[in-house]
Amino acid sequence: MTMHFTTHAPQAPAVPARGRLRPLGQGEVRITGGFWGDRQVVNGEHTLAHIGSRLESEGWLPNFDLAASEGLDERRRGREFSDSEVYKYLEGLSWEIGRTDDPLLEERLRAVVARVAAAQEPDGYLNTRFGRPGQGARWSDLEWGHELYCLGHLFQAAVARERTRPGADDGLLGIARRAADLVCAEFGVDGRAAICGHAEIEVGLAELSRVTGDRRYLDQARLFVERHGRGTLRDIEWGRKYYQDDMPVREAEVLRGHAVRANYLAAGAMDVAVDTRDTGLLNALRRQWDRTIARRTYITGGQGSHHQDEAFGDDWELPPDRAYSETCASIGSIMFTWRLLLAGGDARHADLIERTLYNVVATSPSPDGRAFYYANTLHQRVPGTPADPDTTSPRASSSLRAPWFEVSCCPPNVARMLASLDAYVATADAEGVQLLQYAPATVRTVLDDGRVVAFDVATAYPADGRITVTHVSDSDAPWTLSLRVPAWATGATLRIVTGGSTQQRSADPGMVEVRHSFRAGDVVQLDLPMVPRVSSPDPRIDAVRGCVAVERGPEVFALESVDLAAAGATDVAQVAIAPGTVPFERDGRVWATVQRLPLGRGPWPYGEAESTAGTATAEVPLVPYHEWAERGPSTMRIWIPEAR
Amino acid sequence: MTMHFTTHAPQAPAVPARGRLRPLGQGEVRITGGFWGDRQVVNGEHTLAHIGSRLESEGWLPNFDLAASEGLDERRRGREFSDSEVYKYLEGLSWEIGRTDDPLLEERLRAVVARVAAAQEPDGYLNTRFGRPGQGARWSDLEWGHELYCLGHLFQAAVARERTRPGADDGLLGIARRAADLVCAEFGVDGRAAICGHAEIEVGLAELSRVTGDRRYLDQARLFVERHGRGTLRDIEWGRKYYQDDMPVREAEVLRGHAVRANYLAAGAMDVAVDTRDTGLLNALRRQWDRTIARRTYITGGQGSHHQDEAFGDDWELPPDRAYSETCASIGSIMFTWRLLLAGGDARHADLIERTLYNVVATSPSPDGRAFYYANTLHQRVPGTPADPDTTSPRASSSLRAPWFEVSCCPPNVARMLASLDAYVATADAEGVQLLQYAPATVRTVLDDGRVVAFDVATAYPADGRITVTHVSDSDAPWTLSLRVPAWATGATLRIVTGGSTQQRSADPGMVEVRHSFRAGDVVQLDLPMVPRVSSPDPRIDAVRGCVAVERGPEVFALESVDLAAAGATDVAQVAIAPGTVPFERDGRVWATVQRLPLGRGPWPYGEAESTAGTATAEVPLVPYHEWAERGPSTMRIWIPEAR
Repeated sequence: MTMHFTTHAPQAPAVPARGRLRPLGQGEVRITGGFWGDRQVVNGEHTLAHIGSRLESEGWLPNFDLAASEGLDERRRGREFSDSEVYKYLEGLSWEIGRTDDPLLEERLRAVVARVAAAQEPDGYLNTRFGRPGQGARWSDLEWGHELYCLGHLFQAAVARERTRPGADDGLLGIARRAADLVCAEFGVDGRAAICGHAEIEVGLAELSRVTGDRRYLDQARLFVERHGRGTLRDIEWGRKYYQDDMPVREAEVLRGHAVRANYLAAGAMDVAVDTRDTGLLNALRRQWDRTIARRTYITGGQGSHHQDEAFGDDWELPPDRAYSETCASIGSIMFTWRLLLAGGDARHADLIERTLYNVVATSPSPDGRAFYYANTLHQRVPGTPADPDTTSPRASSSLRAPWFEVSCCPPNVARMLASLDAYVATADAEGVQLLQYAPATVRTVLDDGRVVAFDVATAYPADGRITVTHVSDSDAPWTLSLRVPAWATGATLRIVTGGSTQQRSADPGMVEVRHSFRAGDVVQLDLPMVPRVSSPDPRIDAVRGCVAVERGPEVFALESVDLAAAGATDVAQVAIAPGTVPFERDGRVWATVQRLPLGRGPWPYGEAESTAGTATAEVPLVPYHEWAERGPSTMRIWIPEAR
Repeated sequence: MTMHFTTHAPQAPAVPARGRLRPLGQGEVRITGGFWGDRQVVNGEHTLAHIGSRLESEGWLPNFDLAASEGLDERRRGREFSDSEVYKYLEGLSWEIGRTDDPLLEERLRAVVARVAAAQEPDGYLNTRFGRPGQGARWSDLEWGHELYCLGHLFQAAVARERTRPGADDGLLGIARRAADLVCAEFGVDGRAAICGHAEIEVGLAELSRVTGDRRYLDQARLFVERHGRGTLRDIEWGRKYYQDDMPVREAEVLRGHAVRANYLAAGAMDVAVDTRDTGLLNALRRQWDRTIARRTYITGGQGSHHQDEAFGDDWELPPDRAYSETCASIGSIMFTWRLLLAGGDARHADLIERTLYNVVATSPSPDGRAFYYANTLHQRVPGTPADPDTTSPRASSSLRAPWFEVSCCPPNVARMLASLDAYVATADAEGVQLLQYAPATVRTVLDDGRVVAFDVATAYPADGRITVTHVSDSDAPWTLSLRVPAWATGATLRIVTGGSTQQRSADPGMVEVRHSFRAGDVVQLDLPMVPRVSSPDPRIDAVRGCVAVERGPEVFALESVDLAAAGATDVAQVAIAPGTVPFERDGRVWATVQRLPLGRGPWPYGEAESTAGTATAEVPLVPYHEWAERGPSTMRIWIPEAR
């Protein structure tokens, strides 16, 4: 069954024209605390200010002022895509204003929009890097210039603003529309048959079409999607797959090339497929997601195994130590996966989003919200050097979180994701509401036929596996509350307390449904088993053969060198997990039994096999991966060798 | 004991002022056939002509003609270092002329030298990329410009020519000297305190000093070596270690950064250390080699685990599938290791050279000598696409050998190595001759005190482990014949037949010595055990945990998908080596017993462990790694999982 809900306008980052599920936006779901609520507060109070400050000091916002006056070519600072960070900052501000209604942020947003507006040229063109005397001509470097990419982010910002403050008089939507009109004129059916080297314009245009109702933007998005794979971009050392120009989107079997580009394109293609009812394209994207998740995704949900081109490797090529797993690729993966979830309602998509949120998105920022991982390695061999807070770091220095990068796409991407996170918690269909992510929250919405849904969620998840839904209003007619039971949660139970009677039943992984005319005070309680578990990799993932990972609930755990004292070790390379041992919980932490590896080889490291049999064992604590490197430089590994 | 042999002028690529061993050059050792002799013939007959033809068609040689006339800035073709390929070609021609005295090659060499000479500026400057109207100023981009790097290769070419044809009237040595004089003036003690972003000038200047007797060049080489690690080059994303400007050479503990740069610098630093009697520097380089071999070298001898920066990874970071193992890095490693061997006489250095020759240098070129690997992966996951013979390939497309690359350093590097290989077979000291590499050969030399050494080597090595040394002249006084027993050759035996009497003894790994007044007809016969063997990696080499490699003699073997029919498999990812099985020989091939892996996982590749217990086994042949991909596209792996 597919619903049509064009009349709805949720405050959410993706609002397809139709689909199995409709997102509940910020007005309908509010995260009120807990794991994600705490991070949203840090994001709103610290990260956004930090980003705003760096955009000033790095010159990326002042570029707009220079563009509005003169002298930009010599004085412009930053990489060719720096405009986009300003737009992602605007998007983050928009969601945060939607979430908190903070007048200070409103003031900041308006000030930034005014500076951007001043830099827009009369015909709608907007980019600080091209088109002025001394600069390259407009659209002269589609492979690397990122002009359309930047505009895609501008459109997403304008969409976020319009969804959270419809009809605001700040002018952002008008800026976006003028730029989009120019794009349609330049790159339309009769214009240049070209694409941008970095996908993003597709999702931006499609979403802009949704908030404006202007079909031209959707058509233009479709044109850009369909033009991929026609070889309109120059071939490069890494091949045209780097920018997904190697084959048409509907013919591809898997995501490939640059992992952020691949996911952004897939998200835009989803929007086009759904809004234009293109079943062939939709099925192609589902197929690509399936294979990408089965063969090209880290246990953290991270994607991208190549540093060189920030790209997907081949199937099964998932080195933990050279994992790139760019923060932005994970956000792109969530964008793509969320659209598949809305279209089809498959709980597996919500599982992957949860995994990615806890193990990449939560890993990137430091607890104070002012430093970030750009790359998210699964194995740190050498303790890192703390980033100098006053300098700008190379993008992929994965040893410790850094305040800013020369390529600083990740910090504002994390900010916009966290500020909009309420909109990923729950969805609705004609028969009820689906609770997909677990956080303390309030949910208030009205189903299509007018039935009111109102409940609160209480939980200490993921520290604890109990999720308690308490209904706060009376419903005259039955509706269906669906709760996601993650794939790892075998043995989950559901307890339903309605009007004083209690039922209990087991809940298999997938969506578990409770249909009832809920009354205020009724409770639905889900208990997810949070026992630490051990996972082995598919034998084709060569890089982690003979290793296991420890997981608990949605969190992947890591062994960190600072926790190895009991084993008499100082480096994760010195220990292996003892054969047959099972990780356990004690004092609120997860522990494993390890033993020292025999490391007695001489000058040449290849020869007869050595056994660990007989070496002493010790119990050591693990940390949730997202907490690693918060106690200073260390070595770390998610995949722990099994002693033999 | 250290000898001094400045009066000797071997026809060899490295002739230190002193050391434990003196190289025997082309005039003293001649490879007469076999594994390497066959490759030398292909190199001389096909590879050099192929390179010469590509240097013309790519415009890299015509750049010199343009430089001599006009219009270079617009019409110059090739990367900033393309001049160096012309010089390596000249070096290769020089060694090949030394080896074969081929008049056609002599004519070619002279023609190329004349074109290079015409491009040299009056003050000695020589580079087609800088210094002319419309080009960058001389020395204006030391990080990436490669001007000094190119000159280093020019000097090595001039040295090869002077050693093989002393006093030739072609002018090459004069070109080199004029350029070297300019370098000394520009970069001397009172000049710019700068280095080149790619080491090579150091080894070039030191060797030029040796053939000319001009001490200034050695002093300048020393200055360049000592200036590394002073941060005179700009910091970059990968850090200054990329070009070994992160710390002084004498303070480093290991090779790091770009693997070719690191080895070339180490070779140049060795020349400086030996010729200036700098024991501290020499010991530092020994230490670096030890750790590099113990922790940063592939089982093939290849080095460099990062594609991104063509660089060494951290200790133990040796992924087989993302192995870069650049052909040129191996040649640099041989240059460095050979100098250590000459200085100290340690058989381990000859072991590493042998390993690298058989498993990287022999792997790069195709049997016809007209296609090459630039990167030498140890694991190919996806069958490659044959390179288009008419185009130029990206450098690291490791799937199949390609005729030429945009960065084409490797083909001429292989050519100069093969053409000079006779000079790596044997050395001498005051008491005798050391036979280090095994090939059918003649050895004729005179020891310092006038004792004549003359013997022939007969062997089918590495197909067979018997090496037969037959003396062809009478010696009045005893001298010592030393034969290298490789570290893997436990159980080797030596048979000595002198004047009709026969002795037999066991020969432990290292150098085995036979001292005798050899007479014509005396025979020394070494039998190396060539039984296939299994090697396991140090447990810290995470990427190949749970795998073994099969070796036989100096050759590393590989499993190739085209050989898996008996196992019912089409891809090396489908099989593992059966537990406890031992590889064996049959019909001249090496075989292993494999079994199918259970590959039944669903949509998510992490979960419960699966066992191979009970699946059927099959015997499949392996190929020497250097022969892989000679039967068309395939998947391949050196490290084979062990079934559990």
